[in-house]
Amino acid sequence: MTGNIIGERFVVASFGESHGRCVGVLIDGCPPGIELSEADVQVELDRRRPGQSLVTTTRTEEDRVEILSGVFQGRTTGAPILMLVWNKDVDSRPYEIIRNTPRPGHADYPAYIKYRGFNDYRGGGRFSGRITAGYVMAGAVAKKLLSKLGVEVLAYSLEIGGVRARQLSVDEIRKHRYANEVRCPDFEAAEKMKKVVLEARKQGDSVGGIVECIALNLPIGLGEPVFDSLDSDLAKALFSIPAVKGVEFGRGFEAARLRGSENNDPFILVEEKIKTASNNSGGILGGLSTGEQLVTRIAFKPASSIAKPQKTVDIVEKKETEIVVPGRHDPTVVPRAVPVVEAVVAFVLADHVLRAGLIH
Amino acid sequence: MTGNIIGERFVVASFGESHGRCVGVLIDGCPPGIELSEADVQVELDRRRPGQSLVTTTRTEEDRVEILSGVFQGRTTGAPILMLVWNKDVDSRPYEIIRNTPRPGHADYPAYIKYRGFNDYRGGGRFSGRITAGYVMAGAVAKKLLSKLGVEVLAYSLEIGGVRARQLSVDEIRKHRYANEVRCPDFEAAEKMKKVVLEARKQGDSVGGIVECIALNLPIGLGEPVFDSLDSDLAKALFSIPAVKGVEFGRGFEAARLRGSENNDPFILVEEKIKTASNNSGGILGGLSTGEQLVTRIAFKPASSIAKPQKTVDIVEKKETEIVVPGRHDPTVVPRAVPVVEAVVAFVLADHVLRAGLIH
Amino acid sequence: MTGNIIGERFVVASFGESHGRCVGVLIDGCPPGIELSEADVQVELDRRRPGQSLVTTTRTEEDRVEILSGVFQGRTTGAPILMLVWNKDVDSRPYEIIRNTPRPGHADYPAYIKYRGFNDYRGGGRFSGRITAGYVMAGAVAKKLLSKLGVEVLAYSLEIGGVRARQLSVDEIRKHRYANEVRCPDFEAAEKMKKVVLEARKQGDSVGGIVECIALNLPIGLGEPVFDSLDSDLAKALFSIPAVKGVEFGRGFEAARLRGSENNDPFILVEEKIKTASNNSGGILGGLSTGEQLVTRIAFKPASSIAKPQKTVDIVEKKETEIVVPGRHDPTVVPRAVPVVEAVVAFVLADHVLRAGLIH
Amino acid sequence: MTGNIIGERFVVASFGESHGRCVGVLIDGCPPGIELSEADVQVELDRRRPGQSLVTTTRTEEDRVEILSGVFQGRTTGAPILMLVWNKDVDSRPYEIIRNTPRPGHADYPAYIKYRGFNDYRGGGRFSGRITAGYVMAGAVAKKLLSKLGVEVLAYSLEIGGVRARQLSVDEIRKHRYANEVRCPDFEAAEKMKKVVLEARKQGDSVGGIVECIALNLPIGLGEPVFDSLDSDLAKALFSIPAVKGVEFGRGFEAARLRGSENNDPFILVEEKIKTASNNSGGILGGLSTGEQLVTRIAFKPASSIAKPQKTVDIVEKKETEIVVPGRHDPTVVPRAVPVVEAVVAFVLADHVLRAGLIH
Repeated sequence: MTGNIIGERFVVASFGESHGRCVGVLIDGCPPGIELSEADVQVELDRRRPGQSLVTTTRTEEDRVEILSGVFQGRTTGAPILMLVWNKDVDSRPYEIIRNTPRPGHADYPAYIKYRGFNDYRGGGRFSGRITAGYVMAGAVAKKLLSKLGVEVLAYSLEIGGVRARQLSVDEIRKHRYANEVRCPDFEAAEKMKKVVLEARKQGDSVGGIVECIALNLPIGLGEPVFDSLDSDLAKALFSIPAVKGVEFGRGFEAARLRGSENNDPFILVEEKIKTASNNSGGILGGLSTGEQLVTRIAFKPASSIAKPQKTVDIVEKKETEIVVPGRHDPTVVPRAVPVVEAVVAFVLADHVLRAGLIH
Repeated sequence: MTGNIIGERFVVASFGESHGRCVGVLIDGCPPGIELSEADVQVELDRRRPGQSLVTTTRTEEDRVEILSGVFQGRTTGAPILMLVWNKDVDSRPYEIIRNTPRPGHADYPAYIKYRGFNDYRGGGRFSGRITAGYVMAGAVAKKLLSKLGVEVLAYSLEIGGVRARQLSVDEIRKHRYANEVRCPDFEAAEKMKKVVLEARKQGDSVGGIVECIALNLPIGLGEPVFDSLDSDLAKALFSIPAVKGVEFGRGFEAARLRGSENNDPFILVEEKIKTASNNSGGILGGLSTGEQLVTRIAFKPASSIAKPQKTVDIVEKKETEIVVPGRHDPTVVPRAVPVVEAVVAFVLADHVLRAGLIH
Repeated sequence: MTGNIIGERFVVASFGESHGRCVGVLIDGCPPGIELSEADVQVELDRRRPGQSLVTTTRTEEDRVEILSGVFQGRTTGAPILMLVWNKDVDSRPYEIIRNTPRPGHADYPAYIKYRGFNDYRGGGRFSGRITAGYVMAGAVAKKLLSKLGVEVLAYSLEIGGVRARQLSVDEIRKHRYANEVRCPDFEAAEKMKKVVLEARKQGDSVGGIVECIALNLPIGLGEPVFDSLDSDLAKALFSIPAVKGVEFGRGFEAARLRGSENNDPFILVEEKIKTASNNSGGILGGLSTGEQLVTRIAFKPASSIAKPQKTVDIVEKKETEIVVPGRHDPTVVPRAVPVVEAVVAFVLADHVLRAGLIH
Repeated sequence: MTGNIIGERFVVASFGESHGRCVGVLIDGCPPGIELSEADVQVELDRRRPGQSLVTTTRTEEDRVEILSGVFQGRTTGAPILMLVWNKDVDSRPYEIIRNTPRPGHADYPAYIKYRGFNDYRGGGRFSGRITAGYVMAGAVAKKLLSKLGVEVLAYSLEIGGVRARQLSVDEIRKHRYANEVRCPDFEAAEKMKKVVLEARKQGDSVGGIVECIALNLPIGLGEPVFDSLDSDLAKALFSIPAVKGVEFGRGFEAARLRGSENNDPFILVEEKIKTASNNSGGILGGLSTGEQLVTRIAFKPASSIAKPQKTVDIVEKKETEIVVPGRHDPTVVPRAVPVVEAVVAFVLADHVLRAGLIH
């Protein structure tokens, strides 16, 4: 039943349940001397907080982070950092129904089998998107670490409900990714996305989408092939975000249809520096960072919790039935996933920066 | 510089270089009592052996596996299993050129930086596809283990050079996946794929493609969320195969464009058993196996080694130049990747079967 | 700066500082369905609580444990278990002095160098014996787990300040180990130990001692040689208790002076069962449990914090000086170490019981 | 059945069986650029080779190491290093007897239970002292690494069969530790030790002893408390050497009888440097290296394999019987354990040097 710990040098341990007392994270391996305040973490947490617009759930969660260890006089000490938010605004009663009638698209049924019925099913327990609040806390610390090397991690909604953003510049992404409710710096596309989401909500349905994440100023050679290569570790961590069904780097699945002569990125000299003329590789070759922009795209399925009645099975009475999923739902998880993707990419990069000995 | 070990309970350690003395694998954690012979491993290895047709490289590698520890009287003992093949037919001289002029699309350049010029660059060293011979050995043992639970792992070429196979039945995949050179059980598509590959070869170019892999008869609840979930661990391992640029499960990236009501798989009763009416999830919910067919697709970029001259930089003299990549090339890696994907999926599943305590 | 996580399957992560907000533990890997209440943990915690007699420090720490995750309806869920006690009765001001004048026998100086001055030095921070409160919490859960197999872990003070207990029966140990302040079931020796301790206290000094720990009803074959053998893993964990300077099993150092014919334990049949006539091995052969009683002894140095003035160096002004160590001191750590040793042995055994697949 | 891998950054994986095809080691994490030849490793291996005198077994093992991967042009590449010796001079027939009648003091019985009879019992299989040849290979690489920091690791026989060496200077230890058959730089004691060993041999018996190991020039702050502290990791690795029953640091068990005022090492200034006036701590405080000499002592039991007939049980026929242990025996393992202890201490230190980021 292990599996809640990730990373070799920047070690992130997740804990907490959706409707338990708290949700949070324990970080082991953060070097001493990094400035870190609750405000630093809160900024990031606020970006994933629900209740901010109609495109997300109307649940309100205050989510004030508390740092309980590992920080002294405003700086990390090198000791484990424990951070959490206390759970509030929780009404668990409606969830009784999911105990015996698993929600389609949710982990209820396999979790019931795996944990032999002992798992905390309220609000989805450990399988709730709420768990990602802990990821965001870890990401906030990782970002502070990465900033010492000038590394930046930027994500945004590339596509929601079939509406895709146009090609965007780094500057646009950096400045505008949190400028609207759908977290898409292409404002025109953002308007359309919003419309699609609200329509789905009206119909008691949900839509999926794609988050793109870039990382800038990466040193060359991050990653520990063959198994802990940079893409391997990023993919592992990204698939730990609920609702993710696909991860690709650079041209990704599209590359499967290219010729080698099209897809290979030629090396060139730019102001004495070795660069590539294109970046089809997404900044990763052989599992190592190339020094070019890291580019990854993450596919999110439409949120499983929808208002429409759905077919399911009563697993105790062993008969088919219907369920109306309780709770207030996100008609799409994509906008709130944007800061989560940034956080996850950041803590994987922090791990590899430390493994490479670039920060002590 | 660690990173060559994967798995928690079925631990796979990779070693060897393309043009070194050998390539192989060390397995720690295999339970005692599993029947295992060199022939069992050889069957799998032969499937990835090059030199079998024009769609792959014409290099010949004998690749006779030797089991050097961990097996006694035809069965595993519970001790570490060391397996390797000795390298032969190796001409390293042409590779001198890549030392200073990195091949586009290869790891040469970031590897040179990371290992400060000390890496064994001959034939790509640790970044060669040849390393996957070790994966296949590990997969062969994993398959023996999985067969005790009736679990089967089947992969095939779903798409090569833009040619996509039609929908195939499990039986077709099981019987015909190794029936032709492109490893596609849709014989009509296979013919077209072959044509595309040979054309690319003639042009000194290469093509990419997609491998699909299914796993049958999985127990419910494999996977250790939140970080060691089944999709996380599969993705991590799959991205350790050279040339992989994308991994998806079930509907994958397509799911990003579906509505929740379309994508959710309703639970139904089939002969008293709880099943799902569809399998858009690809057999994974919340990072746990659902008992339905596991479905994953892996995107391979076109092989980076092409005969055409390409732009690169002389990193010592710091000037732009051209390279004609030495060696005999695979015009596509996809057919030979099929047994590798099977192996990788098998050893990740074996790891999770052991973590779940289903075999001792 | 990692290193605060131990175990493969019953994973224990330590956090908190002596004078920070809290001290506690995160457990990953505990199987679902184990009955667990705060009272279960409190019983164990109360045994290491200070302020109970003159032989320990007079500081009072309430140490009420709170379980913050991983338990639902009185049972473990299979999710990570977060437990902590909030720090109270803390006066950190006297500790300013140790910043620049490291206490002899304490980690102050190497910690200052390692963490570059950023470590939380108040009360010793992470190097305080207070950290073991978390170990005890983890041990409490481990004991519940082990009790399902009938495994019992019993420790007691074998020797304090040179006074050694007589040979004791298992029953005496089980019943009387917490019956007096020095945790020695030999009441006569206990009286003498107490006298020695109080004398040392009066002189502003401290004494060391030896804790013996036995474990009963272990299954045969626990341990994963060659590196994760049972003695290896126990020793590693036991040396993580502050003040431990030696660990031995069975006859231990004494065995170095025996002949093989004396030290080997002959196998015999006792009521059809294979047993050994003696137990010089302490229940471990080749790193595996033999099914006999596990016997380990742990040497504790005299507490480093003493009232007597001691020589030290002002590391800023670079000159020799004297220090009178602040705080209220334990004249011996041995009695309070007894429940800590039990806890540590218990969580290592729990880890190996899970690795052996004996509980799911 | 995992457990054959140790270390976080200098990762050592052990493989091979006493009478299998080979014994060796796989190292993952060695930085690139370290000069390494087979001769470097052979020097160390030769020190543990048997057949060198009457105080050890008369078996001859050639033990020529082969480096099969990870070294290119005389230097490490950053890739996994595979090293092994092929087994020769092996007569397994006499070992048939131990299958059913376990040898007292050996792992035969618990191994039989654990591995359900599938373990390779010939010559003790994985539980043979022969496995330590792999440790020595790993140690040879570690020593090369440590030499870059000027760190030296020196072990010697402090006590054999009750004969203890006098206090020795570092220079004596460095120069003379391999100068005689018992590996004791006190030549007078060495003569007596030899006599005791030969007498035991004549009587078909064996003797135990104590190895002391010192490490010089350690940087301050090695170790990752609370669980991966330096003493914890050293003890874990040292208990992985067959026949070890006790490990202590500094004054060790003796410290249990000292007063705090005697045992604490006062800080002093020596030529502007902070040192301690004594070294009762053995160079470790709070699990961190202090910069003083690291001192550890390891207790070895008398070799279990003796010529005298011993009582045992036929586990198939379930009746008591006698066994005369087959094979040629070491009357003491201590002299051959000296290079093994050096190797084990070296690879643990190398791991921590890399964790501390002191070498890349």
